[in-house]
Amino acid sequence: MTRNDSDPTDGEAACFEAGIKFGALYHQFAGTPVSPDSAPSLETAIEESIENQPFCESVTVDILTEKLAAEMDHEYTELTGRFMEVEIVVDREGCEVVTRMEMEDGYPLMKVESVR
Amino acid sequence: MTRNDSDPTDGEAACFEAGIKFGALYHQFAGTPVSPDSAPSLETAIEESIENQPFCESVTVDILTEKLAAEMDHEYTELTGRFMEVEIVVDREGCEVVTRMEMEDGYPLMKVESVR
Amino acid sequence: MTRNDSDPTDGEAACFEAGIKFGALYHQFAGTPVSPDSAPSLETAIEESIENQPFCESVTVDILTEKLAAEMDHEYTELTGRFMEVEIVVDREGCEVVTRMEMEDGYPLMKVESVR
Amino acid sequence: MTRNDSDPTDGEAACFEAGIKFGALYHQFAGTPVSPDSAPSLETAIEESIENQPFCESVTVDILTEKLAAEMDHEYTELTGRFMEVEIVVDREGCEVVTRMEMEDGYPLMKVESVR
Repeated sequence: MTRNDSDPTDGEAACFEAGIKFGALYHQFAGTPVSPDSAPSLETAIEESIENQPFCESVTVDILTEKLAAEMDHEYTELTGRFMEVEIVVDREGCEVVTRMEMEDGYPLMKVESVR
Repeated sequence: MTRNDSDPTDGEAACFEAGIKFGALYHQFAGTPVSPDSAPSLETAIEESIENQPFCESVTVDILTEKLAAEMDHEYTELTGRFMEVEIVVDREGCEVVTRMEMEDGYPLMKVESVR
Repeated sequence: MTRNDSDPTDGEAACFEAGIKFGALYHQFAGTPVSPDSAPSLETAIEESIENQPFCESVTVDILTEKLAAEMDHEYTELTGRFMEVEIVVDREGCEVVTRMEMEDGYPLMKVESVR
Repeated sequence: MTRNDSDPTDGEAACFEAGIKFGALYHQFAGTPVSPDSAPSLETAIEESIENQPFCESVTVDILTEKLAAEMDHEYTELTGRFMEVEIVVDREGCEVVTRMEMEDGYPLMKVESVR
């Protein structure tokens, strides 16, 4: 096949894959009932679940249990972006993309840190 | 308050709570990427997550890894009712309800086993 | 089959079904991006989707768009219990159960209103 | 700030955004109860919901109702990638990315069609 100018580069295709993992992670698990006690098992399950997806090298999830404990009115709350920091590394055809989600201006911002 | 004839009994209120847990469990976690390797961490996370909810005594999730391995085309698949058996026990105001989900006629059937 | 004392009554079985619909509705759609403009189509989709489930007579969803508009920091937010009121009517073997979710003490409370 | 060689290009950042929308769409709505009758309202709700997200120009969802009707055992089934085709267009800082999901080899493949 001839390559068209509008075809994605390797970097663009790898960043698309990284985005898919982030959207999947967030919308699969947002809303899950979580407490400081149950946070560790949820972190592990999210990591191992998303690592199943194609091109996914590693997923690291940190549920912010102190913030969780401070903000929950009852004995648990629902997981949302405010309560977690996530790093996802994708490797597709030799192109490695490091991506991260953390709070910025009160909003869980997902961004690409590096493409190599 | 006077009790109306149409008010729920303790057994009815407890069964409503048990149903909520089942619907929550199923629709929160259906669609999660899962493989035989990642099934154990997902089982634990589902159990501990739903046990956070009010009146929930215990949740037992068994992901059917042999069936999973036999049916997945790629290295993982999406969790659905076909791949799990679940028991949820609710205790509300002294009324204990045991409920279960398992396949029946090719359909993941949720049912009340006992109300005591 | 002989009926055991611990078998569910018709009312208990109907309340279990109503609970399933509530848990399903909440955990399927919590986290959905929503704005005042997109709220009407989401209300309709939630209603028609859950009405597909067995024994489900009617589902009425009211997304609180004024509250949504007041609380969102950006142009949209994620749907959660704070932003909706829901009524679900189940009819199973002639037993009709009316259930409702609305905010109570800052928490989206689901309850059985009547069993007939 | 100095630009590092490993910083994402505009095309890479736009493809990351497109991926997020795809992962979000899939994992928010997979598992939703759907029938041929309720498919149109669900299509509209998915489109309007994801179009709320940043940089999202347009979302087009086609639920394959004939396939749905042919494969469902009961009066409804759960939405999954097998039953829908999706196009998402993202525009970020003047870079337009067209992405698509459709079945390929029995698997719902998401891909970048063009970056301009």
